[in-house]
Amino acid sequence: MGEFELIGRLAARVAAGAGVAVGIGDDAAVFADGLVASTDLLVEGVHFRRTTAALADIGWKALAVNLSDLAAMGATPRGALVGLTVGPGWSNDDLVTVYEGVGACAEAFRCPIVGGDVSRGPSLALAVTVLGHAAAPAPVLRSGARPGDVLVVSGALGGSEAGRHLLERDGATADVALALRHRRPVPRFDVAATLVGRASAMLDVSDGVASDARRLAEASGVRVVVDLDALPLQAGVADLARSLGRQPGAFAAVGGEDYELLATVPAGTVPSGMTAIGWIEGGAGVTFLGDGAAGGLSGWDHLA
Amino acid sequence: MGEFELIGRLAARVAAGAGVAVGIGDDAAVFADGLVASTDLLVEGVHFRRTTAALADIGWKALAVNLSDLAAMGATPRGALVGLTVGPGWSNDDLVTVYEGVGACAEAFRCPIVGGDVSRGPSLALAVTVLGHAAAPAPVLRSGARPGDVLVVSGALGGSEAGRHLLERDGATADVALALRHRRPVPRFDVAATLVGRASAMLDVSDGVASDARRLAEASGVRVVVDLDALPLQAGVADLARSLGRQPGAFAAVGGEDYELLATVPAGTVPSGMTAIGWIEGGAGVTFLGDGAAGGLSGWDHLA
Repeated sequence: MGEFELIGRLAARVAAGAGVAVGIGDDAAVFADGLVASTDLLVEGVHFRRTTAALADIGWKALAVNLSDLAAMGATPRGALVGLTVGPGWSNDDLVTVYEGVGACAEAFRCPIVGGDVSRGPSLALAVTVLGHAAAPAPVLRSGARPGDVLVVSGALGGSEAGRHLLERDGATADVALALRHRRPVPRFDVAATLVGRASAMLDVSDGVASDARRLAEASGVRVVVDLDALPLQAGVADLARSLGRQPGAFAAVGGEDYELLATVPAGTVPSGMTAIGWIEGGAGVTFLGDGAAGGLSGWDHLA
Repeated sequence: MGEFELIGRLAARVAAGAGVAVGIGDDAAVFADGLVASTDLLVEGVHFRRTTAALADIGWKALAVNLSDLAAMGATPRGALVGLTVGPGWSNDDLVTVYEGVGACAEAFRCPIVGGDVSRGPSLALAVTVLGHAAAPAPVLRSGARPGDVLVVSGALGGSEAGRHLLERDGATADVALALRHRRPVPRFDVAATLVGRASAMLDVSDGVASDARRLAEASGVRVVVDLDALPLQAGVADLARSLGRQPGAFAAVGGEDYELLATVPAGTVPSGMTAIGWIEGGAGVTFLGDGAAGGLSGWDHLA
């Protein structure tokens, strides 16, 4: 059983509640009064390694990936809570450095840290919850994609996965832009602001377009067609992918952690700064077109 | 450096924000519009052991201890988010059982589970965030205790620590009431409702009265006097403490996880169902009176 299926089984064990407009299954929960909330874990050895991220980067990333869930709803930040477990090999100074990274991200995106918890544990793990204000007039959900819509993505893809490869291979001499993309992801509040009221569906690209397109298809009850040759690639990604014997589009589609926004918009209305990478059809599942599509693709699963 | 000091250092690294009425340092954060939020971690081997808690108990407790933070502010539940990391020895069925415990607690206290995250990790850990509505006209903080106030506590103490001892010693044949107290703590929303507008300060007894009285003293800038002989003890606690060579009041004061409410009220107004266990003076720190007070006491520190 993978992450998707397990979350479904877990969600079935708890009842939805009064006053909850959007519960488990979207990027964030939305309450009837516009409160938005989301939580994400970052665990050492699963989501980050100390060999490829400095301590402050780990803190930045833990908050940034949560803020990205708010951006994916069109929501704006109100505040965050940060739980930390710390393994036996960590000093208090280390923890303070991690927290400085959290604070830098909090300041960059105007999201005050309002609470938290700290405990001994087997290793470093961060559990961050972000709270936000829903977009007016309505949050942008995963479930609104309709046949005929165009599939668009913001920015450029593959940079985080490429950065991770280079950091593992080259350490401190890795390509700076790609390394930064892996270590200091940026929630796309800027793009989200232009999509509220225009996009029929939206989510952030956390586990790779291949996984996230599947989430979109399931939530909206449609088929998503993704053209791998159309994916916008960050500079340096194509060369690295080829040097690894991988097709660049497929490399970018299964590489997670870009934290761009994947959205659907009515045909003929691709927003500036975004790239059309496919379309929506009736049906179910994801179809990949282009070089590297043969045999199918799957993204990152945090339980696999 | 202990848990208290570290949290202070961490809090200093992040700025307070606009719209935040109460930030880091109380049981929960409070926003200007009355939103209350709190987060607490439960880590295997630190906060629970599978030898003393069934899987569903672990889930119940993870939510209950967070709800207790809401109760300690006089707040009422709106919803919760549950992050889970799962170690290599755990099956998906195990996780579902943990989640059933979360769901049972959610239903008992009408707190819908609105979101969450699940990831591989070195062991089982739960990171729960609860959201609530602040008490009207104002939340009850830790900082309002004044000299002359009476220190009161709800219910009975020591039961969770006694239950833990018995579960470790006797396993399945342990005293049922004490074991239940350890495995299925109950947030005291009932008591909190009677204290809003009456208590000058309030917090929940999570780490033992000895620790929590110190938190109260620090937050309010007062001295707290605790009479160990006055502590209300759950049935069976005194006998167990004596059998371990411990003084019963001291045993209960340093035994954590009772999740009763510790509050201060004006002199002469002890609420029904609560017990006066001391008073507030000018000064700083905590003074213990009674049998077992010699040499001082300290509660549970999750970093020690």
